[in-house]
Amino acid sequence: MIELIKKKRDGQALNKSEYQELINGFVEGKIPDYQMAAFLMAAYFKGLNPEETANLTDTMMRSGDLIDLSEIEGIKVDKHSTGGVGDKTSLILGPLVAAAGVPVAKMSGRGLGHTGGTLDKMESIKGLSVDMTREEFITQIKKINIAICGQNARLVPADKKLYALRDVTGTVGDVSLISSSIMSKKLACGADAIVIDIKVGEGAFMKNVKDAEELAKMMIQIGKNMNRQVIAVISAMQQPLGRTVGNALEVKEAIQTLKGKGPKDLTDLCLELGSHMLVLGEVAPDFDSAKSKLEELIQSDAAFDKFKELVQAQGGDINMVENMGDLPSTKFLKDYKSPQAGYINKLDAMQIGLASVQLGAGRATKESQIDYGAGIILHKKIGDTIQKGDILATLYANEESFFEKAESFMDKAYQFSDKAPQEQPLIHKTVRYNPSKSKV
Amino acid sequence: MIELIKKKRDGQALNKSEYQELINGFVEGKIPDYQMAAFLMAAYFKGLNPEETANLTDTMMRSGDLIDLSEIEGIKVDKHSTGGVGDKTSLILGPLVAAAGVPVAKMSGRGLGHTGGTLDKMESIKGLSVDMTREEFITQIKKINIAICGQNARLVPADKKLYALRDVTGTVGDVSLISSSIMSKKLACGADAIVIDIKVGEGAFMKNVKDAEELAKMMIQIGKNMNRQVIAVISAMQQPLGRTVGNALEVKEAIQTLKGKGPKDLTDLCLELGSHMLVLGEVAPDFDSAKSKLEELIQSDAAFDKFKELVQAQGGDINMVENMGDLPSTKFLKDYKSPQAGYINKLDAMQIGLASVQLGAGRATKESQIDYGAGIILHKKIGDTIQKGDILATLYANEESFFEKAESFMDKAYQFSDKAPQEQPLIHKTVRYNPSKSKV
Repeated sequence: MIELIKKKRDGQALNKSEYQELINGFVEGKIPDYQMAAFLMAAYFKGLNPEETANLTDTMMRSGDLIDLSEIEGIKVDKHSTGGVGDKTSLILGPLVAAAGVPVAKMSGRGLGHTGGTLDKMESIKGLSVDMTREEFITQIKKINIAICGQNARLVPADKKLYALRDVTGTVGDVSLISSSIMSKKLACGADAIVIDIKVGEGAFMKNVKDAEELAKMMIQIGKNMNRQVIAVISAMQQPLGRTVGNALEVKEAIQTLKGKGPKDLTDLCLELGSHMLVLGEVAPDFDSAKSKLEELIQSDAAFDKFKELVQAQGGDINMVENMGDLPSTKFLKDYKSPQAGYINKLDAMQIGLASVQLGAGRATKESQIDYGAGIILHKKIGDTIQKGDILATLYANEESFFEKAESFMDKAYQFSDKAPQEQPLIHKTVRYNPSKSKV
Repeated sequence: MIELIKKKRDGQALNKSEYQELINGFVEGKIPDYQMAAFLMAAYFKGLNPEETANLTDTMMRSGDLIDLSEIEGIKVDKHSTGGVGDKTSLILGPLVAAAGVPVAKMSGRGLGHTGGTLDKMESIKGLSVDMTREEFITQIKKINIAICGQNARLVPADKKLYALRDVTGTVGDVSLISSSIMSKKLACGADAIVIDIKVGEGAFMKNVKDAEELAKMMIQIGKNMNRQVIAVISAMQQPLGRTVGNALEVKEAIQTLKGKGPKDLTDLCLELGSHMLVLGEVAPDFDSAKSKLEELIQSDAAFDKFKELVQAQGGDINMVENMGDLPSTKFLKDYKSPQAGYINKLDAMQIGLASVQLGAGRATKESQIDYGAGIILHKKIGDTIQKGDILATLYANEESFFEKAESFMDKAYQFSDKAPQEQPLIHKTVRYNPSKSKV
């Protein structure tokens, strides 16, 4: 092991069997945390080349169970988002692309800290279960083309152990380590092709487009080396996506979007990501025809019908979906008003996420209980003009004492200006493999 | 802690209280090994500036007991060697400078791997003990001006824990970490001034003079910041020092050197280091008069008499010193002969050290037993002309089966050429603080 550390420290590349020694030894407990920590810091400084990153990813992927989706016909296209606030795209994209004919075998996670999780949002629908056996999962996809379940605990143990260590040793922010973490999980879940939504902005891990593009290229290269098509969309996360943050509130907004009545940014992003998924899944010949098909599926209610099928198949109360007023809400709500007139200049997604945790919508620690009804509706977002006293947002909580704590984060989230702020694009860039260049 | 890791990772300097948090937290077990490992690797890449290194050294020094030598009159000058093969200078320098009037309060270590330790060499003299209480140690120095004892286990625990971690995480080779490790121990032992012998060459940790000089400057700077005079001598270790490797064999050679009959390289190095010690100890006005004084003490047998006083004070069998034939030897000895004629071009100190371990003279692991009589006498060294079949060395062991293993290392140690190799200086450089420059 010490030789592997020194090799990376001195800027040399490790080969495949060395990554196997490293990762398998670490998972089996033969390589202690302190040696892996030193290796990770050396990797942070010296980087991993694309081949090394692919070898690391492959080894991590094989460290636990591999989900075999070969029984399911068609190209299984997965989507991954690097994480944001108010990001309910999975709830919309799943039924939408399933309705278009792409099989959706979705394994999701739970929320932690300022970001929410798809499983928690799903579970705000009474009765809905995300626990299923592999057989139930496959059978449901074969029947209705979609299932959303919790991640198998034996999936990529190397990533769980490595991530925990990176988190406490200042080695999270390396492109190769991030890429291998994401890609190993998606590939272990059996994806044939992957669309990655890389969030950029204050509320996201990537702070600028340049870094996001580097990450995009690395993941596309890993896909190339492992024979999987990957498309990366670099999208804005300087403010929350859509107008809701909180589990049941986000389910409502997802339903509205599936019915064609969602906010523009959320709808646009879903159409963008979904269109790439249709092309990768070979159910549409190109991006434009894919997009038209998706718009049609929304217009015809086929997308919403697929969502209802999904909820019913997983035991959820369909009345809650048809009559959204039945979804969990809270005893108290409180308007958050503007302290001044002008324009909204900034709406910090991270602070909004933290405010929603204060209201009970998220988990401060892994053990926290979630209040499905709690959360925030954002009435005003960046660029909106406001008068003093206008309602900027409505806060939902089951304890009145939560409002004060949440408001201190709201105060930090909203910033104002006299002039209209410059408009920022929602989609910064789409990155895909270009076979005409030797590198991506 | 994670903030301290990130700070160093991003190339920032830590202040004194941050080093206290780091080191004290680590010693107390509050900071886990894996976080310290990540910090050390970040330090390896980003370095520590001289002020940081001094703060680290000071904090490490204070992590355990501090030896107070203030009861002993005079300037206590210590010597440290970065480690070599056949280096018995402490056995010679101690009595030599003590005879000149510099109080010698020497705390030494044991051998491990290919390098020997002063304590083991001392203990090859029957009856001699290196275990003494602080009171016994001080009393003996007051009486005969010299004592050599084992290191207190509570001395610089931070270094013990840090070194063990550096050793297995590829972070040994950083100048600041090496400097703080050496200096914290010397300062905790109560040294007022220090002469450092930095070995350079194949058998040493430092492979070239440039790196050694950098290390020298860092230690001198630490001394400056902590108000201690430090002189560093950069000396050659491309081959073993003197002609013997092994405990009792080295004691014999030390005695011969104290009597003025030692090999030239060993004698020269002892006079060089000793003269600096006399100047720092203010018992001689300058290097040249210090050297004359030491030569006189050898000629007059005063140095050897001091050695006998030391052995007697610590319970050693004085007959073994007066009649060296009584020192431990081995049942078997075997000549190692030259396979060819020509010049000796290379005599790898590391390989000789490993050969002596095979013969029983060293410790492969901390628990190994030492055979005091075992070892090697080198009859031929670099630059000597030889005929095929000439005896290059004699091997001493108590089991005949050890010779074969040792010989495989001897084969690697000796290399030959047709032309005489270029002569290398024994002393490459002397580095000291120059007050006329702002930096050393």
